[in-house]
Amino acid sequence: MAALTLLLLTAIICSSLTENPSNVSPPNIIIMLMDDMGWGDLGVFGQPSKETPNLDAMAAEGMLFPNFYTANPLCSPSRAALLTGRLPVRNGFYTTNAHARNAYTPQEIVGGISEDEILLPQILKKRGYVSKIVGKWHLGHRPQYLPLENGFDEWFGAPNCHFGPYRSNHSRPNIPVYNNSEMVGRYYEEFVIDRETGESNFTQMLLKEGLEFIQRQTKAQRPFFLYWAADSTHAPVYASKGFLGKSQRGRYGDAVMELDDSVGHILSSLRTLGIENNTFVFFTSDNGAALTSGPHQSGSNGPFLCGKETTFEGGMREPAIAWWPGRITKGTVSFQLASVMDLFTTSLALADIGPPDNRTLDGLDLTPVLLSSSDKVLDRPIFYYRGNEMMAVRLGQYKAHYWTWSNSWNEFKTGINFCPGEEVPGVTTHDQTEHTLQPILFHLGRDPGEKYPISVLSKEYSDVLSRISAVVEQHKNTLVPGIPQLNMCDMAVMNWAPAGCEKLGKCLKVPKSESWKCSWPH
Amino acid sequence: MAALTLLLLTAIICSSLTENPSNVSPPNIIIMLMDDMGWGDLGVFGQPSKETPNLDAMAAEGMLFPNFYTANPLCSPSRAALLTGRLPVRNGFYTTNAHARNAYTPQEIVGGISEDEILLPQILKKRGYVSKIVGKWHLGHRPQYLPLENGFDEWFGAPNCHFGPYRSNHSRPNIPVYNNSEMVGRYYEEFVIDRETGESNFTQMLLKEGLEFIQRQTKAQRPFFLYWAADSTHAPVYASKGFLGKSQRGRYGDAVMELDDSVGHILSSLRTLGIENNTFVFFTSDNGAALTSGPHQSGSNGPFLCGKETTFEGGMREPAIAWWPGRITKGTVSFQLASVMDLFTTSLALADIGPPDNRTLDGLDLTPVLLSSSDKVLDRPIFYYRGNEMMAVRLGQYKAHYWTWSNSWNEFKTGINFCPGEEVPGVTTHDQTEHTLQPILFHLGRDPGEKYPISVLSKEYSDVLSRISAVVEQHKNTLVPGIPQLNMCDMAVMNWAPAGCEKLGKCLKVPKSESWKCSWPH
Repeated sequence: MAALTLLLLTAIICSSLTENPSNVSPPNIIIMLMDDMGWGDLGVFGQPSKETPNLDAMAAEGMLFPNFYTANPLCSPSRAALLTGRLPVRNGFYTTNAHARNAYTPQEIVGGISEDEILLPQILKKRGYVSKIVGKWHLGHRPQYLPLENGFDEWFGAPNCHFGPYRSNHSRPNIPVYNNSEMVGRYYEEFVIDRETGESNFTQMLLKEGLEFIQRQTKAQRPFFLYWAADSTHAPVYASKGFLGKSQRGRYGDAVMELDDSVGHILSSLRTLGIENNTFVFFTSDNGAALTSGPHQSGSNGPFLCGKETTFEGGMREPAIAWWPGRITKGTVSFQLASVMDLFTTSLALADIGPPDNRTLDGLDLTPVLLSSSDKVLDRPIFYYRGNEMMAVRLGQYKAHYWTWSNSWNEFKTGINFCPGEEVPGVTTHDQTEHTLQPILFHLGRDPGEKYPISVLSKEYSDVLSRISAVVEQHKNTLVPGIPQLNMCDMAVMNWAPAGCEKLGKCLKVPKSESWKCSWPH
Repeated sequence: MAALTLLLLTAIICSSLTENPSNVSPPNIIIMLMDDMGWGDLGVFGQPSKETPNLDAMAAEGMLFPNFYTANPLCSPSRAALLTGRLPVRNGFYTTNAHARNAYTPQEIVGGISEDEILLPQILKKRGYVSKIVGKWHLGHRPQYLPLENGFDEWFGAPNCHFGPYRSNHSRPNIPVYNNSEMVGRYYEEFVIDRETGESNFTQMLLKEGLEFIQRQTKAQRPFFLYWAADSTHAPVYASKGFLGKSQRGRYGDAVMELDDSVGHILSSLRTLGIENNTFVFFTSDNGAALTSGPHQSGSNGPFLCGKETTFEGGMREPAIAWWPGRITKGTVSFQLASVMDLFTTSLALADIGPPDNRTLDGLDLTPVLLSSSDKVLDRPIFYYRGNEMMAVRLGQYKAHYWTWSNSWNEFKTGINFCPGEEVPGVTTHDQTEHTLQPILFHLGRDPGEKYPISVLSKEYSDVLSRISAVVEQHKNTLVPGIPQLNMCDMAVMNWAPAGCEKLGKCLKVPKSESWKCSWPH
């Protein structure tokens, strides 16, 4: 009798621990990830032009996260972190070719997302989700690395950034645009971005793709995951004709206005379809504004120091808004230290799926914060990585820099400046500078711009450092770096002849393979 | 017959042009002027801590002005401009002791507001307004310069900044606090500000004074003008016990929270009294955040360059919100280039009083912007003065610097830095640098941080400059500088023995008069 009871009890416990097989449909999940958009680009985050009425309204109807971070100040690793819930140093999206370098996936890259990684859409499939990525992938462009090989059911977009050669000069290929598993054209060829005027209707295509997917899945009554990754705010910045010249901020602002408008259309379609109470939407960006691109081609990081490529706040603090009418209390501000990696873990929790138990996850489940009406804040650090180095850590309001670097003197002298008009002596260093014995400490509440290091002689410094040191030691002692995927480059792996090229007559001759260790200058 | 018709017609026209003698009560006017609070200190303007729920709500219920300016990057001239509607170079609140210096009214100053100036409360009296200033005056502390000699009916507050000597050491007097025409004590003596803890209940006293005045005038059914000029965000920063330690930003943030709370109480009292639909409220600050005071004692200028004392955006762009339920369309953003001097002219328009016709006014009547539901924008320049020099001018989105200067090398070397962590080569100069032949041009829409000068070789530069030059020429050709009031200093004029001191036994011995030309280092 006792044995039977135990058996029953075990069965009950086990079934409650495994995936919930109930018929209650899990919520749809939409993650809108912007490209190089800065914290300060939204009205609600302090952009003086106040040209984002739809995003501002989204915040008023949802929850604002002023302390939301990416996992890396550059696109590819940030996106890999989002989809794996793991730091790039764990999921392999980094390089060991040199110390503390930002690596990504240009056309020459041999690697991509490791097959050992589990991506969000792969797990969501367990609960019947249909997943689509609309926009930029950036986790590797060779066949095995593409979205449909990694859990997504559908894709419309490009594998890499929309860099050139801009003309069809055949000395190197333009980036292809895919529809699912086959290319349907290339940027600057079939998918025109006018570099003179900045005109392109590509964001409108991404909007249409997103809306169509939402409508179709709603009709089919299948839960969906839409990863909407528009890239018009990445240089070369572009916008549709209807938006060009409309902003007070020039072309970059035009692009922001079009993205804001798109967000408005997407949220409004959820309402029209009557699924707004069953759809979790999150808006954020992949890294800070690319200040080095100059004012025409870059956004604003608000009060924060430097931008993209750096581990200062301007490089890694992101605009972030969660929206779920009826579930998330409207108009709230959460001061939770949160990360793009949390979107992985949170999405699993929303789908009522247990996280994979055979790997370390860096993302937290934010549902206690999102779905509670209290000011609940989970205690956790934020690690600021640049390639293989933990540059800094934030704990509460304090941030300790263990290494500082903006970029090299050599690069700086050629005009590449990640901190234009913002030199903080001893902080925005042009040599990689180690501070591990005496980290530079800032209080981000009273000094969000990282301009006033706390005196190492103060009690505040020693009190805080002892707490942070313990966290860092624990992190470093348990960290097992993944195999670096972004070390090797090869001209032969470029997008010469993507799947589908033959149907379009767009295949280019693949040159002889010759690989080299990629050079990552910063 | 024709003559009679003409006479009648003339009479009708004239009476419509003169003050409206109707019995319709004009609206109450409340101007809340903060001290050294920066554009970026409010949640709605992008402060990461989002600790100003009452001001953010005020913006949501009213009209936000992201392009609102003070007339001078320093307190006294800014306040003189507000109350006269005129640039300091016209109303005399400047110095000619040296070129382009910020002068104000420390205790040693001999001068004050000229008797030739007409102050807002003096004119409002014509329509039966009762006026009270609560808080800091700063237009001169000698008897003839005090508020009750210049149109105000009531006053609670201090004539100068709450600098020390901090102890009652009698080598120089502490600043007196007045109740109407007599002092009732001194800062750091009867009105304690604990410099160690930052504790002071002075903001609560100012709140109480303001609320009591509003209630009393409402009961008496008299239109009122309340000028609520709290100063707790000026160094030494202070807050009441209930707010100390509550902010994420340290003591400065605590002060902001207390002011935000006070604004909430004031607006809520208008509602309770049922006069919210007949009260125009405007919130702004006297100049940019005093970045040189360091993170514990200064605020944020958001994305703007430098701070108080400079003619960069951080020194002169101010947070600004207009509120008038039922009259101002709620939740609107006006991109009008506006100025603290407009509050003078706008207040007269609201009170249906014609402006004085014997002087040049620099303030515009903003009522067409405030009370229209269209996106009306009045065309006008903004002039950035430092003392006797027009340093820069803004026209539309463009700003041209004719002179640049942060502060001198000598001062800078002693650690006084108005642009900490923000050096823009050739822009934040430490020598007074003239650019009148080739002004430095910025587009503030795409470059609000004034980091990327527009190339002088571009067509944009020459097109814009020709427009701006015409405006500048017109301004300079017609400008008649007022007699400078801030040139002379004298130890004998300090607050040794203010009116009422004898009743309190707080009179100090007045030293022998010995005057000198004040030294204004920056």
